[in-house]
Amino acid sequence: MAADAAAAAMAAASLCDDLEPATARTRIRDVLAAGAARAGDRVVVGGWVRTGREQGKGSFAFLELSDGSCAATLQVIVDAAVHPLARLTATGTSVLVEGEIKEPPEGTKQNVELKVSRVLEVGEVDAAVYPLPKGKVKLTLEKLRDVVHLRSRTNTIGAVARIRHQLAYASHTFFDENGFLYVHTPIITTSDCEGAGEMFQVTTLFSQAEKTEKELRENPAPSDSEIEAAKFLVKERGDTVAQLKAAKASKQEISAAVDELNRAKEIVSKLEERSKLKPGIPHRHDGSIAFEDDFFKRQAFLTVSGQLQVETYACSLSSVYTFGPTFRAENSHTSRHLSEFWMVEPEIAFANLQDDINCAEKYVQYLCKWLLDHCREDMEFMVKNYDKSAIERLELVSSTPFVRISYTKAVELLKNVTDKKFDNKVEWGIDLASEHERYLTEDIFKKPVIVYNYPKGIKAFYMRLNDDDKTVAAMDVLVPKVGELIGGSQREERLDVLKQRILDAGLPLEPYEWYLDLRRFGSVKHSGFGLGFERMILFATGMENIRDVIPFPRYPGRADL
Amino acid sequence: MAADAAAAAMAAASLCDDLEPATARTRIRDVLAAGAARAGDRVVVGGWVRTGREQGKGSFAFLELSDGSCAATLQVIVDAAVHPLARLTATGTSVLVEGEIKEPPEGTKQNVELKVSRVLEVGEVDAAVYPLPKGKVKLTLEKLRDVVHLRSRTNTIGAVARIRHQLAYASHTFFDENGFLYVHTPIITTSDCEGAGEMFQVTTLFSQAEKTEKELRENPAPSDSEIEAAKFLVKERGDTVAQLKAAKASKQEISAAVDELNRAKEIVSKLEERSKLKPGIPHRHDGSIAFEDDFFKRQAFLTVSGQLQVETYACSLSSVYTFGPTFRAENSHTSRHLSEFWMVEPEIAFANLQDDINCAEKYVQYLCKWLLDHCREDMEFMVKNYDKSAIERLELVSSTPFVRISYTKAVELLKNVTDKKFDNKVEWGIDLASEHERYLTEDIFKKPVIVYNYPKGIKAFYMRLNDDDKTVAAMDVLVPKVGELIGGSQREERLDVLKQRILDAGLPLEPYEWYLDLRRFGSVKHSGFGLGFERMILFATGMENIRDVIPFPRYPGRADL
Repeated sequence: MAADAAAAAMAAASLCDDLEPATARTRIRDVLAAGAARAGDRVVVGGWVRTGREQGKGSFAFLELSDGSCAATLQVIVDAAVHPLARLTATGTSVLVEGEIKEPPEGTKQNVELKVSRVLEVGEVDAAVYPLPKGKVKLTLEKLRDVVHLRSRTNTIGAVARIRHQLAYASHTFFDENGFLYVHTPIITTSDCEGAGEMFQVTTLFSQAEKTEKELRENPAPSDSEIEAAKFLVKERGDTVAQLKAAKASKQEISAAVDELNRAKEIVSKLEERSKLKPGIPHRHDGSIAFEDDFFKRQAFLTVSGQLQVETYACSLSSVYTFGPTFRAENSHTSRHLSEFWMVEPEIAFANLQDDINCAEKYVQYLCKWLLDHCREDMEFMVKNYDKSAIERLELVSSTPFVRISYTKAVELLKNVTDKKFDNKVEWGIDLASEHERYLTEDIFKKPVIVYNYPKGIKAFYMRLNDDDKTVAAMDVLVPKVGELIGGSQREERLDVLKQRILDAGLPLEPYEWYLDLRRFGSVKHSGFGLGFERMILFATGMENIRDVIPFPRYPGRADL
Repeated sequence: MAADAAAAAMAAASLCDDLEPATARTRIRDVLAAGAARAGDRVVVGGWVRTGREQGKGSFAFLELSDGSCAATLQVIVDAAVHPLARLTATGTSVLVEGEIKEPPEGTKQNVELKVSRVLEVGEVDAAVYPLPKGKVKLTLEKLRDVVHLRSRTNTIGAVARIRHQLAYASHTFFDENGFLYVHTPIITTSDCEGAGEMFQVTTLFSQAEKTEKELRENPAPSDSEIEAAKFLVKERGDTVAQLKAAKASKQEISAAVDELNRAKEIVSKLEERSKLKPGIPHRHDGSIAFEDDFFKRQAFLTVSGQLQVETYACSLSSVYTFGPTFRAENSHTSRHLSEFWMVEPEIAFANLQDDINCAEKYVQYLCKWLLDHCREDMEFMVKNYDKSAIERLELVSSTPFVRISYTKAVELLKNVTDKKFDNKVEWGIDLASEHERYLTEDIFKKPVIVYNYPKGIKAFYMRLNDDDKTVAAMDVLVPKVGELIGGSQREERLDVLKQRILDAGLPLEPYEWYLDLRRFGSVKHSGFGLGFERMILFATGMENIRDVIPFPRYPGRADL
């Protein structure tokens, strides 16, 4: 049958009739948003029971149902005649139900309710073994980290998930609106952005070694005597060929003997090849590990920042950004550090430090405004449960210009502080400690502060050297509650200066030749910054621990799931 | 000085006056979009010279300027009096210029031009060494992979970058509009999604070993005799204490001797500790590698899919998706495989296979429509240079319902094919090969085809077993040009069936206990799929090699930058 005939045959057949019909589920957010306007409508709603209780001597039950589409739950009423109530009321039970939207009792400020006519599906819960039951002492956020696969069923982690989603979407929208292109910088890298920073290595050497060892167990490497025996066979067969030739044997005979010889040679080369197989990680003659045998033929690492790579796109497409996971193999056990976290890193061509600062301020304000517009309910939850001032802070930040002061002025201010004793001494040249940063933003200015022009000694080689030869065009955005939220700089665009800065940092030039090429060919002033995405969520929500604002936190000793 | 006083002091100071003023650059896209309406306006424009030529006996030059904001270039005219022309015309030169927008010559269909009054900045290029000069034979896409840091300066890679950006933003917009939450699933994982799939391992054992070796070189481990000597000292000092006690010496004397003894003991324990330091990777007694000494206290890998983890969020927040990098350590050298690639993976609660198929179709159509609406110019470039039918294909796919046929019917159709000989034999039970998939979508139906209900033997354990006990509720979306674009399934939500499927696959239950918990507690029907983001770009653009549609391709032996 030709293709066209087949198509005709199929057109006649009815398609997809062997599949269950689609589910026409209405999200709880939409039911609640429509309110009384949809009273009388029949809808199918699915979700998990937050709390359930039997009423009227067991004649009906109230279920508070959540489907994650919003912070609020929908009150669902089920009659005992419709379904056995005891199977529905345990916290965590899932239900898919059909029912009619009812206006709330008159005179109350309640939401609409759903009067159930059919229970379509139920996923039961045995409250005795469910890790998050009602009634039991509420699990702390710390305990919830041990049930990372279930904790998104709690109000807190659900609210954080919605806020995180909105912040991510707001980021993409902000950059798209402003003409930035999203560039996926590599996760596996052979460059090291900071010239320091502890990195995770990416390798297949362990699995290769495992394979080799398995192979050798099943089929051990040949011994020297086996190889010798095989070589002896080659010699014998060689002799045979020589004898036949000398005896002027027939072509056929000689050719057959040559074939035998070649087979013997092949066996030797295979044995020799296999005799080189060694168990364990491959090593060089000097005892070091042979990374040239690894997957990428060299050492490869997980990125600590996409900045250097995204600069290649900025130096051709002007306004770009990357938003991806970054990694630090540091043994940090603080509430502000993760081994795997997400960073937003815009990079702008034809932009100096002032442009960079303007972009950072505009971006952070945009995010705050977005949350006020799109996440009211979840932000109110945060205010009620975690941080009274969370909404006020968003309002303040979204509407107030940020303070901008030079590092030198900031140090002067901090030196003159008399009402607080710092643990770390303040003097020109130091890297500001978290306590200094927070004092500037929380006590002195009570709003976000952008500090710029830092001493060159404490900043990375790629930051542009200022004319004073002492400072670089770097900037940090400091915010209340978190301290440093953004770090950025104008990049050194002058080839000779950049080379010298690399050498001054004690780094070799060779790995940076591609980076230097950006300055060799059509170099432009350019600037960028990085925003720690989880820190932004801490700032927005007022949550205390960074492990609670990323779905699957990774830190020393822990990588659950 | 108290915080308030400091703030007052700062308020009086003028801020940010030591920074260069911001750059008011207008994007070329905006200049061209406004067209003649902005003729007469003065603007600052920055970009890189695509081609430049002197005219009028060297009295002025035309520069075709690109800033990446759109496919088109802006024609810029510079008089010799304004700037030395020879420094501007080399391909790749960067310029920031101020000028006046001029209407195009009357009667032509040209775009507006820019008449330059000031050249603000120039980044020169030495055409003799520039890897991408004008005139030289145009570099092939393959050659461009060797200059991955500069290739975004070409028309092709620039167009791909803009299309890629639009597809990413369209994806986020589609899911946001449909009530999906973006969930960042982990990159470093201790789970293996497929129970197969070659994975990259993430480790700090090599760097730990390096540190230990450096430490041992600087300060070698103590010898046995050193430790013996130290122990002897402990014994001596112990004797001294005993003697003093026996002699009823003063408390002071005894206490001093005890202090000495403790110091000697401490030295022994430090020496013993150091004597355990061994160079190289840590091993267990049985010779295997001690992964419990690694960063996460166990083996950790790069994710091959976020599906299993994102299911935890679907089973609490209903409609979620992940969009992130995924990894395969396979030794594939094809034009369709990468070691690092991006995947979009939605997961929907209360959704069966039909819902899943509907969502996949709607999503792909949305992407195609979006490109037609947002990327016309770049798509026309693709049509002109790479694939004549690229726009037609987007139009077809965005407006035509996809064909839906069961695997069983698809196999029947393929078995009856007479006008083509397949390399791989077709019979019920086989995994469809790429040639079969492409024949279905390109020859038989000439549009996207969704094949569903595959034999259970060729699919993963988590796919829902159908009532026939022979097939699972899996589906693949096949598209012309690429073959498989999407793979998805309804997930097995029945605890006992899922357990059995895990065991049947030869996998242990223990690592999947968290996954089984989702079925133990409030289990729901749910479905999802994965779209290979780079394959979508291949499909949209008609480009042939996947290495050219990701900014920094990773494949065996190569991880540049």
